[in-house]
Amino acid sequence: MGLIVQKFGGTSVADIDRIRHVATKVKKERDAGHSLIVNVSAMAGTTDQLVNYVKQVSDLATDEAWAEYDHVVATGEQVTSGLLALVLQSQGIPAQAFNGWQIPIHTDNAHGKARVSRIETDAVRAALDAGKVVCVAGFQGIGEDGRVSTLGRGGSDTSAVALAAAFGAERCDIYTDVDGVYSCDPRIVPKARKMKHISYEEMLEMASQGAKVLQTRSVEMAMNHRVKLQVLSTFSDEPGTLLVDEEDIVEQQRVTGIAYSRDEARVSLTNVENVPGVSANLFGPLADRGINVDMIVQNVTEGGKATDITFTVPRGDLERTLEILKTAKRTPKYDSIHSDKNVVKVSVIGTGMRSHAGVAAEMFRALAEKQINIIVITTSEIKVSVLIEEAYLELALRALHTAYGLDAVDA
Amino acid sequence: MGLIVQKFGGTSVADIDRIRHVATKVKKERDAGHSLIVNVSAMAGTTDQLVNYVKQVSDLATDEAWAEYDHVVATGEQVTSGLLALVLQSQGIPAQAFNGWQIPIHTDNAHGKARVSRIETDAVRAALDAGKVVCVAGFQGIGEDGRVSTLGRGGSDTSAVALAAAFGAERCDIYTDVDGVYSCDPRIVPKARKMKHISYEEMLEMASQGAKVLQTRSVEMAMNHRVKLQVLSTFSDEPGTLLVDEEDIVEQQRVTGIAYSRDEARVSLTNVENVPGVSANLFGPLADRGINVDMIVQNVTEGGKATDITFTVPRGDLERTLEILKTAKRTPKYDSIHSDKNVVKVSVIGTGMRSHAGVAAEMFRALAEKQINIIVITTSEIKVSVLIEEAYLELALRALHTAYGLDAVDA
Repeated sequence: MGLIVQKFGGTSVADIDRIRHVATKVKKERDAGHSLIVNVSAMAGTTDQLVNYVKQVSDLATDEAWAEYDHVVATGEQVTSGLLALVLQSQGIPAQAFNGWQIPIHTDNAHGKARVSRIETDAVRAALDAGKVVCVAGFQGIGEDGRVSTLGRGGSDTSAVALAAAFGAERCDIYTDVDGVYSCDPRIVPKARKMKHISYEEMLEMASQGAKVLQTRSVEMAMNHRVKLQVLSTFSDEPGTLLVDEEDIVEQQRVTGIAYSRDEARVSLTNVENVPGVSANLFGPLADRGINVDMIVQNVTEGGKATDITFTVPRGDLERTLEILKTAKRTPKYDSIHSDKNVVKVSVIGTGMRSHAGVAAEMFRALAEKQINIIVITTSEIKVSVLIEEAYLELALRALHTAYGLDAVDA
Repeated sequence: MGLIVQKFGGTSVADIDRIRHVATKVKKERDAGHSLIVNVSAMAGTTDQLVNYVKQVSDLATDEAWAEYDHVVATGEQVTSGLLALVLQSQGIPAQAFNGWQIPIHTDNAHGKARVSRIETDAVRAALDAGKVVCVAGFQGIGEDGRVSTLGRGGSDTSAVALAAAFGAERCDIYTDVDGVYSCDPRIVPKARKMKHISYEEMLEMASQGAKVLQTRSVEMAMNHRVKLQVLSTFSDEPGTLLVDEEDIVEQQRVTGIAYSRDEARVSLTNVENVPGVSANLFGPLADRGINVDMIVQNVTEGGKATDITFTVPRGDLERTLEILKTAKRTPKYDSIHSDKNVVKVSVIGTGMRSHAGVAAEMFRALAEKQINIIVITTSEIKVSVLIEEAYLELALRALHTAYGLDAVDA
C-alpha cells in the first residue's frame, strides 16, 4: 500500500474533540496499510484572531510587514499539527509534527501569498520510514529569505497537493465540511447530485466560479502533477468526489455542473470614444491597483465612433473601481458611468462542451423561458457564463440544472 | 553606544496596547543610540492555554510527546515577536522578528526544559547592522534533532541572558511587573528597600528562595558570563536593580535581603534505624521520582541506635512523597511518619556573611524574641534558612528586616 496525503481544514480541527475525530480518520487509513502525511489547517477562528491582531498594529503596506504577518499567522497551523501528533501518539500511533520550514517546503518571498518552489523529501521520508504519521502544519513554507512564508488563504489545500506531488502519493484526500463536489450548490438546488468523478479542468472552473470546495491553485497544481485528488467529508464515511483526467471519465455529459458567484458588481461606461488603446487606458489603472476585472463586453454603437463597455469586478472593489475611474483623467472619453451590485454570475461547466454543440443556446433558451434577462455573456472552451440580476439566481440555477438533465433521480 | 538586550515578560506584552507600550521602551533606548535585541514572552495567558490544549490530549509520558509540546507551546512567543516588530515598523523603526531556530539558538534535546548550547550570531548581526531592532521569540531554541525546543517556564529570562552573552551586550534589561529587587517582599514588609545593586550570588539565593523576580538559571548564566543584568519595571521610568560582581559593591552589609518560600512541606520520620545507607535508602526513591528534597536534619537519639529525620519537599509533592515512603519497603525501619504543610522557609542572605560573624545567632535571637519556634535550620556560605510555622511568616520577616537594619529610612 502506498502513501496517502490527507488534508483537514479549519472546521475539521476546530477543537480538541474534532482533532480526536480526525485521528480516527488517520488511524483508519493507517490500519489499511497506508503511509500517511497529514496536512492540517489552524483551529477554526485562530487564523482570524491572529490576522486581527496584525491588523490592529499594521496597515500591511510593506513587504517587511507581510513577512511579520506570516511569522505571526503561521503559528495557528503549528499548534494543530503538534496537537494531532500528540493525539495519535496517545493512541499508540507514532507521529511527528513538521512545520513548513522543517520539511522544508521552499517558497518564493511573496509573503502572505507565497508560491511553493520546491519541497525537500529527506526529513519526512525518514519519519515515514520510521513508521511515523507525519503531521504537517499546512498553509506555510520557508522563503528564500529564510523567513516563514504563508501561501494565502486556503493555502493548506495547496500545500497538501504540493506534498502529494513531491512524495508521489497514491492519493490526496481533502477532508472538508461538505461531502464532495455537487453538480450545483445543494443549499439552492435540492436536486443537486454529488459527483463521483470530475475532471481537473471542470473542477478548476467550478472552484474559480465560486464553488468554494477547493482552492483554485491546489486544483491547478493537482492537474499539472497528475495528483489524484479526492474531496470528502470529515464528518461522514461516504465516499467523496475524485478528481481525474478528462479521458478517465467514460460517459461524458455536456454539462457537468453549474456554479455561481455573488461576488460580482457590474460597471458600464456609455459612449466611450472608440480609439485604439481604449481598453488599455481603461483597465490598466485598475490592474495596477490590484482590481481583478472579470467579464468584459464591448458593443460598438453610432456607426463605430463610440462604444459601450460593461465589465465586472469583485463587489468589495466596486467603490474603489468607481473612484479610480472618476479621478483618472478621462481617457478614453465617455458620457457616463453606471454600476450595479445586484448581479450574479452563473456558469455552466463541462468538458463535454468540446464535443457537444448548442450548450450555450440551451442555456439562453432555459433562462429566456423563465424571463431572466442576460446582462453579459462570456464563454470559454468548457464554460458558458452569464451575468444576471441577483434576484433571479435561485430560479436560474434550478432551471439550468433541470434543463441539462442534472437533477438527481431520487431527490 | 553599544548593544542592549531587553526582555519583556508575559504581563508586559499581555495585549496589543501593552505591546505598543513596550515599543516606547524600545524606542527610548534606540533614540539614545543603542542597538537592540528585544526578547519577548508570550502574551499573558497564551502559554497556559496552549499547555492546557496539550494536557487534554497527552499525559506527556514520552520524549516524543515533549517534542510536540515544544512544537505547540513555542508559538506564543512567535506571535508576540512578530506583533512587536509590526508595531515598531508602523512607527518607522525598522524591525525584524526571529524565532529561536532562525537565529539559531542551539539547545540540547531535553524538550520542555532544554539548555542553550550555542548561539549563532551572523543572521542577527546582519539585521542589527542593517539598523533593525531584532525582536526575538523568547523561551525557545532548536534542538540537535532539528525540532523546536523550549527552555522551561521562565525560559525567556534565560534566552535573554544567553543572547546578551553571545552578542557581548553592554547590558541585559529584564522588564517585569515589579520595579526591582527588594530587601524583602514589599507586600509583607512595607519598609522593604529597593536595592540599587545586588551581587549575582545573592540574587541567586534570593531567586531560588522564592523571590520570583528572575529565573535562577538566567542569574547563573549571567554570573558565569558576567552579563550586566538589570531588573526594572515596564510600567514606570524608575531605575531598577543592577546585578553586579560582589567586588563591585563598595559597602557590603551583613545581610542584603530576606527571602521566603511558602512552597514547603515538612516530613518527619521518628526512630529511624541508624545504620549505614539510611539516607540513600530514604531519599533515593524520592529523587528517582523527581521529588526535590530541600532541607534535611537528622538527630541521633537513644544512645545512637535510632535517629529522627526531618526534611522538606515542595508542598505539591507531599502526597506523592508520603505514598512513596509508605509503599516502599520499610528500609530503613522507622516508627512513624509525621507531616505538616503549614510551614514556610525564611532565609537571610548576604555575601557580607563571609566576613561578618554572628549573623545566624542574630537571626535566632530575633525570632526567639517574638516567640517563633524554629523547626529546621540549614546554612550555606551566604545564607541562613529556617523552617517555621506559616502563621508566623509576616512577623518573622518584619522582625528580621528590622534586626538586620534593612528598614528604609523614609518608609
